[in-house]
Amino acid sequence: MNATLSLVSTEDPAPSALDRLLRPRSIVIVGASPQFAKVNGRPLKHLIDKGYTGRIFLVNPKYREIAGIACYPNVAALPESADLAIVALPAREVEACIAALGQRGIVAAVIFSSGFGELGAEGKRLEQSLSACADAHGVLICGPNCLGFVNAFDGVYATFSQYADGDTGAGPVAFVTQSGAFGTAIAALVRQRGLGLGYFINTGNEAGVSFSDLMLAVIEDPRIRVAAGYLEGMRDGPGLIRLAERCTELGKPLVLTKVGRMAAGVRAAASHTGSLAVEDDVFDAVLRQNGVLRARNEEQMLDMLEALCSDRVPEGCGLGIATQSGGAGVMMADRAEELGLEVPALAPQTQAALAKVMPAFGAAGNPVDVTGQFIANPDLLLESVVKLLADPQVHIGIVWLQLMTAHVDLLVNIFCRIRERTDKPFFICWVAAPPEAVRRLRAEGIVVFGAGERAIEAAAALVQYRRTLRVAAERRAERAALAAAVQRATSEVCASFRDGVQPTVQATAWLQAAGVPMAPVALACQGDEAVAAWRELGGQVVLKIESPDITHKTELGGVLLKLNDEVSIRQGFTTLMQRAGAARPDARLDGVIVQSMAAGHLELVIGVKRDPAFGMVLMVGLGGVLVEVLKDVAFRLAPISEAEGLRMLDELRMRALLDGVRGQQAVDRAALAALLSRLSVWAAAMAPRLEELDLNPVLVGPDGPLGVDCVMVFSRVEAS
Amino acid sequence: MNATLSLVSTEDPAPSALDRLLRPRSIVIVGASPQFAKVNGRPLKHLIDKGYTGRIFLVNPKYREIAGIACYPNVAALPESADLAIVALPAREVEACIAALGQRGIVAAVIFSSGFGELGAEGKRLEQSLSACADAHGVLICGPNCLGFVNAFDGVYATFSQYADGDTGAGPVAFVTQSGAFGTAIAALVRQRGLGLGYFINTGNEAGVSFSDLMLAVIEDPRIRVAAGYLEGMRDGPGLIRLAERCTELGKPLVLTKVGRMAAGVRAAASHTGSLAVEDDVFDAVLRQNGVLRARNEEQMLDMLEALCSDRVPEGCGLGIATQSGGAGVMMADRAEELGLEVPALAPQTQAALAKVMPAFGAAGNPVDVTGQFIANPDLLLESVVKLLADPQVHIGIVWLQLMTAHVDLLVNIFCRIRERTDKPFFICWVAAPPEAVRRLRAEGIVVFGAGERAIEAAAALVQYRRTLRVAAERRAERAALAAAVQRATSEVCASFRDGVQPTVQATAWLQAAGVPMAPVALACQGDEAVAAWRELGGQVVLKIESPDITHKTELGGVLLKLNDEVSIRQGFTTLMQRAGAARPDARLDGVIVQSMAAGHLELVIGVKRDPAFGMVLMVGLGGVLVEVLKDVAFRLAPISEAEGLRMLDELRMRALLDGVRGQQAVDRAALAALLSRLSVWAAAMAPRLEELDLNPVLVGPDGPLGVDCVMVFSRVEAS
Repeated sequence: MNATLSLVSTEDPAPSALDRLLRPRSIVIVGASPQFAKVNGRPLKHLIDKGYTGRIFLVNPKYREIAGIACYPNVAALPESADLAIVALPAREVEACIAALGQRGIVAAVIFSSGFGELGAEGKRLEQSLSACADAHGVLICGPNCLGFVNAFDGVYATFSQYADGDTGAGPVAFVTQSGAFGTAIAALVRQRGLGLGYFINTGNEAGVSFSDLMLAVIEDPRIRVAAGYLEGMRDGPGLIRLAERCTELGKPLVLTKVGRMAAGVRAAASHTGSLAVEDDVFDAVLRQNGVLRARNEEQMLDMLEALCSDRVPEGCGLGIATQSGGAGVMMADRAEELGLEVPALAPQTQAALAKVMPAFGAAGNPVDVTGQFIANPDLLLESVVKLLADPQVHIGIVWLQLMTAHVDLLVNIFCRIRERTDKPFFICWVAAPPEAVRRLRAEGIVVFGAGERAIEAAAALVQYRRTLRVAAERRAERAALAAAVQRATSEVCASFRDGVQPTVQATAWLQAAGVPMAPVALACQGDEAVAAWRELGGQVVLKIESPDITHKTELGGVLLKLNDEVSIRQGFTTLMQRAGAARPDARLDGVIVQSMAAGHLELVIGVKRDPAFGMVLMVGLGGVLVEVLKDVAFRLAPISEAEGLRMLDELRMRALLDGVRGQQAVDRAALAALLSRLSVWAAAMAPRLEELDLNPVLVGPDGPLGVDCVMVFSRVEAS
Repeated sequence: MNATLSLVSTEDPAPSALDRLLRPRSIVIVGASPQFAKVNGRPLKHLIDKGYTGRIFLVNPKYREIAGIACYPNVAALPESADLAIVALPAREVEACIAALGQRGIVAAVIFSSGFGELGAEGKRLEQSLSACADAHGVLICGPNCLGFVNAFDGVYATFSQYADGDTGAGPVAFVTQSGAFGTAIAALVRQRGLGLGYFINTGNEAGVSFSDLMLAVIEDPRIRVAAGYLEGMRDGPGLIRLAERCTELGKPLVLTKVGRMAAGVRAAASHTGSLAVEDDVFDAVLRQNGVLRARNEEQMLDMLEALCSDRVPEGCGLGIATQSGGAGVMMADRAEELGLEVPALAPQTQAALAKVMPAFGAAGNPVDVTGQFIANPDLLLESVVKLLADPQVHIGIVWLQLMTAHVDLLVNIFCRIRERTDKPFFICWVAAPPEAVRRLRAEGIVVFGAGERAIEAAAALVQYRRTLRVAAERRAERAALAAAVQRATSEVCASFRDGVQPTVQATAWLQAAGVPMAPVALACQGDEAVAAWRELGGQVVLKIESPDITHKTELGGVLLKLNDEVSIRQGFTTLMQRAGAARPDARLDGVIVQSMAAGHLELVIGVKRDPAFGMVLMVGLGGVLVEVLKDVAFRLAPISEAEGLRMLDELRMRALLDGVRGQQAVDRAALAALLSRLSVWAAAMAPRLEELDLNPVLVGPDGPLGVDCVMVFSRVEAS
């Protein structure tokens, strides 16, 4: 039986360590204090105040009892074992405590203590030692340097977070955060929205269980419907992907916020692909590829959570807007258009139905302007929204209104009746709403926002979530075929590799064998060979210096274009060898590559690089020199299917170029997507050795895409 | 004396109509009602409740008195005249009422009545008639179809807006809105922030005074420090520009929100420049050019207003961040980088000073992580923020914290002390703040936000406002020189024009005379003339069909490139004339243009078009075919200086191309800016006739920019 599944199965006779951690039947507080305002006093206070029903043990040599509960001098003296230990000791005492816990049969601990990895090299050593000790003694640890966690369903308050000071009624949201202070603030905001946190977990330094471990455990709880996470960094890429996949399998949305979107993650890597693959871009692409919703900040996260906690998912991207203000309607329609939602024209039968209930001066289009007349005639609002939502092209509704302090009862009643008469999701956007109205609507489970654009963004997140579920199902169906393709590619590549930059002829042959169209190349070690290669290729050729030590050939004049006679080929060979020798006397020169001149009206950059967290990452960018200027690139984890390749192309801002601009022929997107898929499969197969691969440019002409330059670098294998 | 200046001069013996409207010493309510919940009852209720000190007269044949105030059967029966009339009558009775008001010497009226321009053709006719009647009788009208207005300083409540139901304490913000419902919501949000509205005005259909008229009047009031406006459309471009200029002269920031950012404004105009000049882009550019801050929605407007109401302006764009959470610091630094703020490294003396007060586990960089330790040691927060703000590279500060429900007194006190010890602006960002804390900080005049990114956006708005003041001062200094240049250009252009498309040779000559570098051209009416022109120009030439009826030459094969011998020139002439004749038998063919082939490594589109609201608008875009795909263009109202031309270039997303990418030479930006300025001056001089002008492409080579194709269209002049 899956350990995490047992979390909520009370019949399970042998709960896992993770289960004991998150749903302990007994808790020991090591370093307990009667000073309830202090870090080591707060957990006991919360456990008592909030009515934890399990047994509580205390350890502290200074006290015999605290709040009427017996206090033992040390862990060994405990009368029995416990499921979970809360460790609130100075850093230097923690390791010994963990060993004692293990010896006492206590296999799960949450460690508040700071003074570990966050405190430089000495702290990192201490943390590594702690981690090893925990492993050796079979103790699963959460932390150190964390605020602990709350499991509000079961009254477990293993935390000193300020969040626990207020009301902590359980609810359908699980929130796991790497930041203590910011996480506490977000948890408090979730509470303000009346959403209810089932779990609130601060992971701290993650010396034991990781963010993904904890999130994977809590999403299995059937009382949890939506998962939210706050990240500051991510080392365990595969763990995050497992989490994302499990969330889509369970049909539970996962919303993540990660800070560090800008320069922080930029690499100084020399290669083109490397320098563009800002870590955050890769992270963002991985989320999109795996059906995770990303919230850019805490406000957007809250808005998404509120929308996702409602139990209705739109069947499409058609938005119906009913508003009291024409201007607010325009503002919302603008934002909807920006986010890819549709604000469809209404069907004739909808228009006819609306015309019957609308006053002369309202507009019966979409947005529907219901004006303020519904105060005199409440049915006006009720019927017009019901009819709007009944339109076949409308999949989600937003009702905008403002103030109406004197009419809260009336309006709450109308919105409840609307909900009964439709099964489509709809949000209320109530600007400058009376607080009572917001409270009552939320108590009714009706989603309410305070600003129009935020309501639209939340609607877009719901629509995106629905798309996500569909794509995730497609991906599950493709998974076996992709794995088999990678397996096949792995067995086909049996050549001997050298370290570093691969010979162009070899790299080209591998890619051609993998089904990636590449311009034909030949290596010439002498002028005669260059002339022979030119004759064989036929037509104009390009000559390029070939050396494992030179990757940027153009910069030292190592490329000659459009040669088409014997004399210039022979001269060209000599010129390139001389230039390279002069510019880089240290470089090993293998000779000169002779390649047919390729033509194309569109230029792409396609590459693969190794991301430290996620592994092989595929990149595609449009526009030659503009790739650098505009960073118009899309990323995916390899391998990908052709369908995913098409979605990658759809993310490019300059994608209109693919469709042909100013009378130019449209590009065969399927052929490009096939290239991307095949390259990604090959790269995944080569993952153990491939460091990076750069096809720059890939030219797209009438015969489809063709890679015309290739830099392929393998990692060095250390003698073992 | 300026009429608007008299607004606040109580000694003025003859106030203007606008003054009487906004600051009436007596008010007559026409259509008054004792039912205080109704539209025509509410103004009297508010005037009484809020203590209006002027005289009140009532008109309604149904009543003899209301609330103890005498009620007259009609306007003519009033015992004396009044400054302002509030008209709350059915639409069909309004015009007669206005006439009666004029006859009674009442020269200002606010008209609530709907049923005018907002109700189709019949309503528009009624409104035109009303407007003419008001003019004829010398009555200045605000509305119709408006909620009226509040002048909270003087207790004037000429409104039935819900906003007036709550507390309406006067404050430094003047808010004028074209939308009643949305405007009321925004006014209520301003009140929620504790900012205080001095004026709240709904302009309605603007049959009399316009948005700009009203805003111009209220910004002159010395009690107003910040102006805010909400727009749904803008017909009076020059009025908006006058308003913007007056605001910068007065040093009062103007924040505008305008809905309709997306497709709504797109034209179907055939020409390149026309099709790109989405109206909202022009509007946005005009605001930027004239120092107006644009808020994308009501939340951003409120954030900007709160920041602008504080009396401190940053001296630069250096941001100092003090935070309780490392992650929140990263999130804010990310957003700051996106918005062009700097988060500078701290000076050695600042670092040393911080190290003295910071605990070991805080980070002394920027963002400064002060941790939660300041609860035990309040001086930690106080001293570290003071020292951070004292850094010479820090011009504005943000302090981030969360919850701290138990420490409101302590924290409010610390922030007040910080304010005393620095003269730099700083904001508090307090996430999930206790409401009391927010209330008290705002009462102290300390700016407080609830989310980190919003605090950053507000800081960026303050920095932008400071830049705006500097640019506005520069523009004032340039204004006379630009006007003189336009005057000179006007007197130089004395040729006779034909309607429609101008001959290329003539257009080129005008532009060359105006200092715009253009590739030399000659018109050939026969093959021999084409050959002669080729010999004269020397080197490769391009041939283009010349016809006032053909603007898209390429599409019918009307352009031949790189010709450089007599035979092909002669053939080319014949080919073009035949092709054009075959494709467009109706077109008048003037002959063929012979032009030197120009080379350049960078391609721009530069154009001028007439905007219906603002007049001549200059456009520059980068990237040939990409201009269409990426819409990477910048707009300005003509004329502009060279300095403004440089700012235009700086707005292009692909501006890095100007600096040279991959070893390409940098473009001479000054030469491009000079071209833009000269073209804009010429276009301004030609404003009465010029409809549009398209230089596409302008190629930039080693000798600077050169226009190589030109379409110039003059409007038709009707016989008068």
